[in-house]
Amino acid sequence: MDNAGYKTGSFDGLHQVSDDDEMVDIAGATLDFSTTDDDPPLNSGEGLPGETGGYEEYSSSRGMNGAGTPAAMVHPLDDPVPGLGTYEDFNTIDWVREKSKDRDRHREITSKSKESTVALLHRISDAFSGWLLMLLVGLMSGALAGGIDISAHWLTDLKEGVCLNGFWFNHEHCCWKSNETTFQERDKCPDWKSWAELIAGTTEGGSAYVVNYLMFIFWALLFSFLAVILVKAFAPYACGSGIPEIKTILSGFIIRGYLGKWTLIVKTITLVLAVSSGLSLGKEGPLVHVACCCANILCHLFTKYRKNEAKRREVLSAAAAVGVSVAFGAPIGGVLFSLEEVSYYFPLKTLWRSFFAALVAAFTLRYINPFGNSRLVLFYVEFHAPWHLLELGPFILLGIFGGLWGALFIKANIAWCRRRKTTRLGHYPIIEVLVVAGVTALISFPNSYTRMSGAELISELFNDCSVLDSSQLCSYKEVSNTTSGTSVGNGMADRPADSGLYTALWQLSLALLFKVIITVVTFGMKVPSGLFIPSMAVGAIAGRLLGVAMEQLAYFNHHWIIFRHWCSPGADCITPGLYAMVGAAACLGGVTRMTVSLVVIMFELTGGLEYIVPLMAAAMTSKWVADAFGREGIYEAHIRLNGYPFLEAKEEFEHKSLAVDVMRPRRADPALAVLTQEGMTVAEAESLVESTRYSGFPVVVSQESQRLVGFVLRRDLLISLDNARQRQEGVVSSSQVLFTEHAPAQAAEAPPPVRLRSILDLSPFTVTDHTAMNITVDIFRKLGLRQCLVTHNGRLLGIITKKDILKHMAQMANRDPDSILFN
Amino acid sequence: MDNAGYKTGSFDGLHQVSDDDEMVDIAGATLDFSTTDDDPPLNSGEGLPGETGGYEEYSSSRGMNGAGTPAAMVHPLDDPVPGLGTYEDFNTIDWVREKSKDRDRHREITSKSKESTVALLHRISDAFSGWLLMLLVGLMSGALAGGIDISAHWLTDLKEGVCLNGFWFNHEHCCWKSNETTFQERDKCPDWKSWAELIAGTTEGGSAYVVNYLMFIFWALLFSFLAVILVKAFAPYACGSGIPEIKTILSGFIIRGYLGKWTLIVKTITLVLAVSSGLSLGKEGPLVHVACCCANILCHLFTKYRKNEAKRREVLSAAAAVGVSVAFGAPIGGVLFSLEEVSYYFPLKTLWRSFFAALVAAFTLRYINPFGNSRLVLFYVEFHAPWHLLELGPFILLGIFGGLWGALFIKANIAWCRRRKTTRLGHYPIIEVLVVAGVTALISFPNSYTRMSGAELISELFNDCSVLDSSQLCSYKEVSNTTSGTSVGNGMADRPADSGLYTALWQLSLALLFKVIITVVTFGMKVPSGLFIPSMAVGAIAGRLLGVAMEQLAYFNHHWIIFRHWCSPGADCITPGLYAMVGAAACLGGVTRMTVSLVVIMFELTGGLEYIVPLMAAAMTSKWVADAFGREGIYEAHIRLNGYPFLEAKEEFEHKSLAVDVMRPRRADPALAVLTQEGMTVAEAESLVESTRYSGFPVVVSQESQRLVGFVLRRDLLISLDNARQRQEGVVSSSQVLFTEHAPAQAAEAPPPVRLRSILDLSPFTVTDHTAMNITVDIFRKLGLRQCLVTHNGRLLGIITKKDILKHMAQMANRDPDSILFN
Repeated sequence: MDNAGYKTGSFDGLHQVSDDDEMVDIAGATLDFSTTDDDPPLNSGEGLPGETGGYEEYSSSRGMNGAGTPAAMVHPLDDPVPGLGTYEDFNTIDWVREKSKDRDRHREITSKSKESTVALLHRISDAFSGWLLMLLVGLMSGALAGGIDISAHWLTDLKEGVCLNGFWFNHEHCCWKSNETTFQERDKCPDWKSWAELIAGTTEGGSAYVVNYLMFIFWALLFSFLAVILVKAFAPYACGSGIPEIKTILSGFIIRGYLGKWTLIVKTITLVLAVSSGLSLGKEGPLVHVACCCANILCHLFTKYRKNEAKRREVLSAAAAVGVSVAFGAPIGGVLFSLEEVSYYFPLKTLWRSFFAALVAAFTLRYINPFGNSRLVLFYVEFHAPWHLLELGPFILLGIFGGLWGALFIKANIAWCRRRKTTRLGHYPIIEVLVVAGVTALISFPNSYTRMSGAELISELFNDCSVLDSSQLCSYKEVSNTTSGTSVGNGMADRPADSGLYTALWQLSLALLFKVIITVVTFGMKVPSGLFIPSMAVGAIAGRLLGVAMEQLAYFNHHWIIFRHWCSPGADCITPGLYAMVGAAACLGGVTRMTVSLVVIMFELTGGLEYIVPLMAAAMTSKWVADAFGREGIYEAHIRLNGYPFLEAKEEFEHKSLAVDVMRPRRADPALAVLTQEGMTVAEAESLVESTRYSGFPVVVSQESQRLVGFVLRRDLLISLDNARQRQEGVVSSSQVLFTEHAPAQAAEAPPPVRLRSILDLSPFTVTDHTAMNITVDIFRKLGLRQCLVTHNGRLLGIITKKDILKHMAQMANRDPDSILFN
Repeated sequence: MDNAGYKTGSFDGLHQVSDDDEMVDIAGATLDFSTTDDDPPLNSGEGLPGETGGYEEYSSSRGMNGAGTPAAMVHPLDDPVPGLGTYEDFNTIDWVREKSKDRDRHREITSKSKESTVALLHRISDAFSGWLLMLLVGLMSGALAGGIDISAHWLTDLKEGVCLNGFWFNHEHCCWKSNETTFQERDKCPDWKSWAELIAGTTEGGSAYVVNYLMFIFWALLFSFLAVILVKAFAPYACGSGIPEIKTILSGFIIRGYLGKWTLIVKTITLVLAVSSGLSLGKEGPLVHVACCCANILCHLFTKYRKNEAKRREVLSAAAAVGVSVAFGAPIGGVLFSLEEVSYYFPLKTLWRSFFAALVAAFTLRYINPFGNSRLVLFYVEFHAPWHLLELGPFILLGIFGGLWGALFIKANIAWCRRRKTTRLGHYPIIEVLVVAGVTALISFPNSYTRMSGAELISELFNDCSVLDSSQLCSYKEVSNTTSGTSVGNGMADRPADSGLYTALWQLSLALLFKVIITVVTFGMKVPSGLFIPSMAVGAIAGRLLGVAMEQLAYFNHHWIIFRHWCSPGADCITPGLYAMVGAAACLGGVTRMTVSLVVIMFELTGGLEYIVPLMAAAMTSKWVADAFGREGIYEAHIRLNGYPFLEAKEEFEHKSLAVDVMRPRRADPALAVLTQEGMTVAEAESLVESTRYSGFPVVVSQESQRLVGFVLRRDLLISLDNARQRQEGVVSSSQVLFTEHAPAQAAEAPPPVRLRSILDLSPFTVTDHTAMNITVDIFRKLGLRQCLVTHNGRLLGIITKKDILKHMAQMANRDPDSILFN
């Protein structure tokens, strides 16, 4: 084996810039590249100071050119050009570059810290700034969530009446004030007046009902109008749940202003208004957006996070956990939600920090105590009876229902939203919101289960009936003498349903139908709107209905073989509240396709490992059933609807295509636009940039060899060329653009060259043309790439961007590849 | 811009194999490469059938060469050569290749499933085999854990006495049998005889004590002897906790037999023996190993998992979760433990599946009910009093203690283990175990807190004293009339300590000292040994001591300003059991550096979010303090001690080196051994392989150009060459080895060439020489690479393997780079 060619050629290429000694023979290019070498060629690796220990110096002497951090490099001009290394709006970040930048910053701080005490303190404060930021995010989000809870509670009650003691008291608070003996007939405290009482002077009869009805609709319209107007006027980004966009942002997309202070303020206010207006929406999803806004704003306090897009996304991942933590009072569930559903890059450090932030937020919220019961969780449930193995049957039924509902909901909602986007419907967002709010109010008032807020409804459905319960759902017949001889006084035994319960079941069925339909049109309107509560409400109603049915079935047929062993008369064998909870989990799972996080959130609500198996059975069934209709959850569906460049981590790329099938240029396209490392003039470079719309250009040794040297971003190139023309003396259009380390010999009268090696990324990612696309997609996902160059036997062939991959995936799935809008 | 060279050269290179039209001019190689092209050159991309839709066919026609799956490729010989694509022992797998293989398999099943019903059923069963496997792993691990619990309980009791009803009953079980009125004086049931009673005929006095003492030592020696003999004779891999090795295996290393059936059987038996012998070790860590063995063995039932190293590791990750789940009864904590501490590649699908398996295992264990109390968790705790904010002070103190203990323990244990490795101590494992077991038994018998098993001790320390509690730790003075006027009868109020408690505190202090020392020498001996329980015991003792001290301080000084508001006389303000729990968490955190999983496991033990904040404060402090002494946890320290090739995901690579500094060959080394895609004979290739020890070779276009074509593994190359020599007619030493797609024209009398394109990986990973090492390390970690080629301007410069990176990292950390043993 003779490796001579290798020895003389490539290894020396480290020091010599143009290692290509072919003579250029195409017309128009007249330079002889073999003369461009300043360094004396090192003819062999042997005998050089290349011992193991010597490499360290060697590498550091060349600065950080390879680290992909243009700003930190040795620059021909003294101070770095502003704007270098930043991103434009609606563009994808380069994770590798950002993380590398942060490591450089960290290394610098660490090495400086050995020099002085101030620098040491700086290092320590830098190390703890992440924790401090998490603390602040937790405190701020917890406080905001508490404020939102209290305000929404107050505004919701305002739809029914007002407190004479002070209009700022909600119903419960008003009655506390007026009545020292609390809870003694909540509805009859003198200070709280319903609108009928205030306006018509009566609390009974048809006219009072009409007045209350009209006032209910009036407030609903007013609140929803205010919400939509505020969103439209001040912060269009405040609408929706925000989770699809946050997923996209976390995956490395830039949407300026989406997490800004205006969005935060407007979203907080309009969320309260939207929830209070009685629309079929929840505040849980938007709370994630609110928490992310808090985190983004607080990031500005710390240079480490302000200046680094990757680091900031770590904080945002934690903020997503905080959002769910305050929404449900479930910190562990929140962390898992962030991990499973929202985050893209979730290192272990972030796991730990988001757990901390989620806990801080949960405890801040508890300190504010918006529910007035010192409970951390939104729906506190305590069931008394264990479940029986045979009940898994109905639980799985609920799972199937949840899966069907989820799949149908997604299809219907996306169809409706697409209609809104493409037809004239989208031009009248205010009217749309007012119509939906009006219809919602009109229909929901007569039915007490739709009139109450979603969260209240779910609480009531989850509730395990005790004897003292006055709720209509707990109106069972008193059974004076049971066959088992135990007194009914113990309270928990199954009993036959009373007529009140049958009425309630009818109302619930109607409520279910109404919720199913209205939620489809509500989600996606131009107001803040979450999906968790409406989905859970649908599932909880279905679950409760099934639960009561099972209970009555078991009561009247306790001699049936399936009931005989565990459902003897007088026993408390079936808990309809548990069915409601399982149903809620199933429906939420069907819509969002959450799995572990869903079960853990539900587990945190009840606090017992006991009920994990039912929840899990339902969640699994629901996911499988829903996946059979389409693998996307509602958030992914909305991401796709909006054409965001989101590379789904869950779905495997299953096709056989190779990198060469996806790369640009395609066979029919004009050739790839490349820069050469020398020999181009400023004018040529500028015209290349201006004649194309690519966001970056590969730099090659020469047009003939097509050997890849590096990659330069359009933005950096334009900024640097502009900068050179303005600040560097003598730079004209005919000046050479040099990406080489050493300037070639030039004629004396030639204008000074523009040296741009500093903005050149010397370590662009490459794959070969034969690389399977599933591997390429994996690389893009895992490393967070923005583009990747394709080579064949060492020659540059083309380029693959994230957008190309998404387009290819859309095409493979028989979707319109042009639906991918951004890069 | 003229891209003519690019167009004619590279793009056509897709079809033509040798796109290098340089004439070969080195001696010995006489072929003209420009004549090797079979295909007519396609001179331009324009006008070809290259529309968007046409690519699919185009790519599939070329088979799956790019997918890196040699076995699936079109092979010149009809059936694939056995052994291709497998790994040798103590080697690192290529994650990308394995995952790609699985995707191909899956794609094949999917496409076949459209053809027949049988194939469709196969696809469905394939999709569900993962879940079925998880179910089996859960069931088997749960059952084994139950068996281990029961046997260990029995053997531990056997050290004290025997049941006359049947020697296979443990103490409690024996007394149940003999005594219908359960728990009525547990120690005085007629059928249970202590050894003194049986042998000396007396239960009191010095001689009985001596007999019991001797029998205790005898059993300890016997059990530990059996354990070490079994391990030594049948399964040397069964020793230790197994977690360091499992971490390494999960990161992609092959250790054959480490998870085999012999290891499983021997580990299960010796674990029981080791735990029963009274050595200072736990069974929690080894249970992870046991669960992983179960999973590995069960994998053989399913082709999908048997044949794919990457898929199998997904199952093993889930099994690690199962292990912790059954060890503590904490399924969620188990999943997080696997995610945070053990796993390397943990996709969301695995998260969901491991959660399922962990639940199945936990419920299987509960069904077996080894603790006899229907509790899922190992230490069930229920505290009655909330904690006060000021108590965070002592909790943080416990955190500091835990961190110090963790750091010291790791240093001491590693020093001891290194001593064992390097000195003659390591030659006498049996004597070592016997000596340690003897000393442990000798010292631990007189002190009741060391005599009981670790788990019992922790249970007792966690316990919240009620008035009825007869434990020595709960011997408080009865206070007849308290100043607050409430009767002591309510039971929970703080009371002054009695002399019994002071004795207990003394004994606990001695136990602490003993445990701290003996655990250092015990962990790492040639018996199965876990660290969780001993660490937790140390922390629990320290915590309980501090807790009682705080309690007494508060009792006697309730007028102090810090106690005034929350510790009035008669109040139950300080719970020593909680301190024990916090201390246990702190010590475990200091040793293992677990964070979220630790807190979640502890949360699952108590079931209340209430105590998360104290646990978190302690765990955080402990981690920070311990990290100040060294960032490695005990498992990473043992991995390093053993020289396994493990690329730690937690630690960032912070140095400035570039790929060129790390790659081989170094400057002083001989040139990189490469194969050329054509022009080499079988003899040349064989001599190259035999003269080197590399596990793979890059294939280049020609020695001169050094343009990279692909990468071929040593093992694959050897197998294929052997195979060709044996099975392909006419292959002799002078036959050409061809990696090209099309055979070049050859003289008629030349022997037939050996065509090896099928074993060539056409998509090797490359980085440029300027790539920063932190990026390269990231690529290795995230993609699970085994090696990566280094290029400069399109020419091959060198290669970086995982081992090179580990050596470089060791060197940067001023450690011996030769400590990295395996590749």
